[in-house]
Amino acid sequence: MSAIVKEDLLFDGNEKRIYATDNPDEVIIRFNDVATAFNNIKKAIFPNKGIVNNGISSLIFEYLNSKGVYTHFISKIGERDQLCRKGQIIPLEVIVRNYIAGSLADRLAVEEGTIAQTTIIDLNYNREDLGDPLINDTQAVALGIVSFEDLKYIYELAHKINGLLTELCSKAGLKLIDFKLEFTRDSAGRIMVSDEISPDTSRFWVAETDERLDKDRFRHDLGYIVASYEKVLDRLSAVVG
Amino acid sequence: MSAIVKEDLLFDGNEKRIYATDNPDEVIIRFNDVATAFNNIKKAIFPNKGIVNNGISSLIFEYLNSKGVYTHFISKIGERDQLCRKGQIIPLEVIVRNYIAGSLADRLAVEEGTIAQTTIIDLNYNREDLGDPLINDTQAVALGIVSFEDLKYIYELAHKINGLLTELCSKAGLKLIDFKLEFTRDSAGRIMVSDEISPDTSRFWVAETDERLDKDRFRHDLGYIVASYEKVLDRLSAVVG
Repeated sequence: MSAIVKEDLLFDGNEKRIYATDNPDEVIIRFNDVATAFNNIKKAIFPNKGIVNNGISSLIFEYLNSKGVYTHFISKIGERDQLCRKGQIIPLEVIVRNYIAGSLADRLAVEEGTIAQTTIIDLNYNREDLGDPLINDTQAVALGIVSFEDLKYIYELAHKINGLLTELCSKAGLKLIDFKLEFTRDSAGRIMVSDEISPDTSRFWVAETDERLDKDRFRHDLGYIVASYEKVLDRLSAVVG
Repeated sequence: MSAIVKEDLLFDGNEKRIYATDNPDEVIIRFNDVATAFNNIKKAIFPNKGIVNNGISSLIFEYLNSKGVYTHFISKIGERDQLCRKGQIIPLEVIVRNYIAGSLADRLAVEEGTIAQTTIIDLNYNREDLGDPLINDTQAVALGIVSFEDLKYIYELAHKINGLLTELCSKAGLKLIDFKLEFTRDSAGRIMVSDEISPDTSRFWVAETDERLDKDRFRHDLGYIVASYEKVLDRLSAVVG
């Protein structure tokens, strides 16, 4: 593990900051309390959100690592901090959907919460200036972002992760509505699952009641944001050994 | 061929009307002079456009039929009329793109006319009330529009047609920038290429000059609309036997 002798800020996102370490192949990711929605039009601070999200995302990435999924995550090193492998960003957001919710429900005029008859996997071009538009495989390849072989690997991985997380959530009494994956390449060019998996980037509903325990509480002013995220952490912690 | 003893209007689109015939498996498609753009916000009439488009689309569909592509087209039966096999609409617009142009250029912030490094094939959900949004394979299957097997067939067909039309256009001194395909199912459930292929639904540029000979002349008020469409018809007629 890297000694953290310097903390140069490499990237200042809203929800997270990335710092350099003395090891050029490793970075520290720090989870903040900021929440944003609707392409940063809505923004607020929720004390301790970063601590809870670091807890959830660390738990999930540790679980994925233990199941042989290659991720950027090395270890949780503080209540808000993770040590991760540094990677080159692939500018795609890959959304895996078991139920239709959020903007897709509006886009397709389908009732929110409708079960997807097949797992939906969306590619969004990670370009905030363009509104992170939906793209397809051929557009992504034409843009030079990925190859068709990369996409095949990414989709296989997305299905594998969906299977693992759906099972975990089911044990925890949660419906995994959808979740976002982002990917980076390590120095050898190998694709790693990166970023975070948390209620900021996924939708978790309580299985029996459809109570929302995710960022939609912020988007739609439903309150109890951090308390809801804590429920996700508690429920997942109870089922992961 | 059907005797056209009755002419019941089945569908009134802007650019085309569809009439019943005395044969329940056949319809007449009549090409009008109306042009629309930007989801019907812009609308105008261009005398003889329907005649020219019927000429171009009949020529292209006859060519595709002769190459073994199964289409709805039976024969041209009048200067504005085609006899076609009736089919059940598949609500998808399949856009095949050899160059990036139009709304996609804006959407991806790519210069119009950039060559696509791989053939781009877009699926749009044919729902005018939703703005015909881009969807992907998994969304189309989840919506119950098509199966993954249907999509495999549609993509193979799209590539085959693109090869045939690109070659034809190249001989005619035209760049085939992009074109739209629509599909129906015949009474046995077999997928047919349907609708039209014309400068209203495709982009044709003069190879040497990049002069536009398609509906972008209407969208962007470039004038000489029907004269440009006639150039496409003349050039294609000269290379098809």
